[in-house]
Amino acid sequence: MQQKPFYPEKRVFIISAGSVVGQKEKKGPLGALFDFSGDDRFGKDTWEKSEAEMQRLALGIALRKAELMDYEIDLLFAGDLINQCLSSAFGLMGYRVPYLGLFGACSTCAEGLLLASASVSAMCRRAAVVTSSHFCSAERQFRYPVEYGGQRPPTAQWTVTGAGAFILSSSPRDAVRCGSEYVPEITELMPGCLVDRGITDAANMGAAMAPAAADTIRRYLDSGVDSSSALFVTGDLGAEGSAILHDLLRADGIELEARHTDCGLRVYDRTESDAHAGGSGCGCSATVLAAELLEKLRLGQMPDIVFLATGAFMNALAVNQGQSIPGIAHLIRIKAAKRCDLIEEKGGVPDGADR
Amino acid sequence: MQQKPFYPEKRVFIISAGSVVGQKEKKGPLGALFDFSGDDRFGKDTWEKSEAEMQRLALGIALRKAELMDYEIDLLFAGDLINQCLSSAFGLMGYRVPYLGLFGACSTCAEGLLLASASVSAMCRRAAVVTSSHFCSAERQFRYPVEYGGQRPPTAQWTVTGAGAFILSSSPRDAVRCGSEYVPEITELMPGCLVDRGITDAANMGAAMAPAAADTIRRYLDSGVDSSSALFVTGDLGAEGSAILHDLLRADGIELEARHTDCGLRVYDRTESDAHAGGSGCGCSATVLAAELLEKLRLGQMPDIVFLATGAFMNALAVNQGQSIPGIAHLIRIKAAKRCDLIEEKGGVPDGADR
Repeated sequence: MQQKPFYPEKRVFIISAGSVVGQKEKKGPLGALFDFSGDDRFGKDTWEKSEAEMQRLALGIALRKAELMDYEIDLLFAGDLINQCLSSAFGLMGYRVPYLGLFGACSTCAEGLLLASASVSAMCRRAAVVTSSHFCSAERQFRYPVEYGGQRPPTAQWTVTGAGAFILSSSPRDAVRCGSEYVPEITELMPGCLVDRGITDAANMGAAMAPAAADTIRRYLDSGVDSSSALFVTGDLGAEGSAILHDLLRADGIELEARHTDCGLRVYDRTESDAHAGGSGCGCSATVLAAELLEKLRLGQMPDIVFLATGAFMNALAVNQGQSIPGIAHLIRIKAAKRCDLIEEKGGVPDGADR
Repeated sequence: MQQKPFYPEKRVFIISAGSVVGQKEKKGPLGALFDFSGDDRFGKDTWEKSEAEMQRLALGIALRKAELMDYEIDLLFAGDLINQCLSSAFGLMGYRVPYLGLFGACSTCAEGLLLASASVSAMCRRAAVVTSSHFCSAERQFRYPVEYGGQRPPTAQWTVTGAGAFILSSSPRDAVRCGSEYVPEITELMPGCLVDRGITDAANMGAAMAPAAADTIRRYLDSGVDSSSALFVTGDLGAEGSAILHDLLRADGIELEARHTDCGLRVYDRTESDAHAGGSGCGCSATVLAAELLEKLRLGQMPDIVFLATGAFMNALAVNQGQSIPGIAHLIRIKAAKRCDLIEEKGGVPDGADR
């Protein structure tokens, strides 16, 4: 098995990002950073349509920030948690961009960034990634009707109502055009393996996903890369999963706790909200990456992150059939590239040739 | 929007394929060509586990044919129709290969081949693609309980019980090692856009998907590629969808009928089976491609195909909410490359350096 990370053959930049969230997320500690927030309905008459609308908005915002039209994007990767990933299909149908649907559970954001990196490196110039989740559409599909108000154990997480969109480009000109002092650059990719440790509790996703995160991190560190300058950011392990991750790695002699954070722990104030172990869902890692982490990279407030979105593979039927819940974690290394270096690099390219 | 097909930067070969089907498919006109068939349970106690088992078997067969171990594969792309794509996750969990889940409805086979091509071209050497469907797991999820025996209209299609697996490599050495007189080579890729023409009848997937197939074919032909030698093969339009496709293209002055076939029309004998408009499902295009089409390419019985797997985005809830059913069609051009030419090409590579 591939024990080294993949390195894209061309440089890959995240030239813009958009984030859309609901009310609860807006009230959280990152509330001021999101691009757009609405009531959780977003003007629609079903939760599923509301989630689709968030995807539409998030991509629209990312396109506007990059000053691009949809037809200037070559490929669109998208996914969500809803059966047959319909939030993505319905939300993005209005954009005339070739569409590739993904299902990586809550890891979809990192999976999309990984495949978009491969694509802009191998066969096209720009690709977009969009993922979302919505508390109400997810809750009634995976657990109980929202109105039922089922009691949630302390290990349960709260599905983030939110969508994140990203535009990737292999063109230094795009990077210079859209960058701030720095431009987020994807430098290493390490796809995760399915890891099943026999967890069957659908209210403890952190426990199902932590072993997968530990597996990917272990393989990444074993490969000999230098990650000493990086902050490790997992997608939605929450409090329970993060503690398990630290323990699992500690057993292998890896001390990660001091340089690890989790998007699910950042998005809500756990003392004030009802989020229990933290946030989760495709929208959790995507909105925190888009609104907070990438912005910090752009502004030079953070040099380097190792981003791992984690996912748990379950559906209502499988849980009822007593199946275990395998987890997965895909890793993306994102560094802040100096914009001024890129200006020198693209020196020879004649104006406009690249657009 | 990208109006030209993508060309992988390296040569991409399909070095092996495996197919597993159920009883009804075994009795069909292609029955003798499939690698493995079982009773539809495949030794498991739920239909979902049976479907997962078909995926496991299909990949195992493809690996065995390529004389490879799982750890010699760098990436695994997989998808199916079951909620949250669990047939893929459970079926392939035992293989220790980084896993990327896809959801492209019945187009997943072509989507996987497209992304695997990009990956082996950009960042790794070998990738595998596995997709499946199972009549019993799909029927009860999308329509009615199997035991209910709901009546099916003539436009309905029969979900193929089957799984197909493919191993792609960018190494000419692999191609020479695994090839027959010819080696199937992926030369062009054209991802599809979501196309919605307002179809709301969940028993007429052909009508939902045909406009998407027409859209992709139109873009492909408009790009000026020479496809005169190619047979166009769609995934699962069936009789209804194929007729609509021919009509739609004819309205644009494109006469495709004489050089078009559909996997859904090839897999069952429609006069003898109860398949109505033909076969469908992720397993339909995958098993026909694996068992019949690639084999004909390998043996020199067919020089060139334009393969389009088609998908329809729906779930039970969306249909009940009155949502329309968008379709998609991804295109893969596969040609028969002469094995002897590859032997010359790899001339300079020292023995074993490539493995």
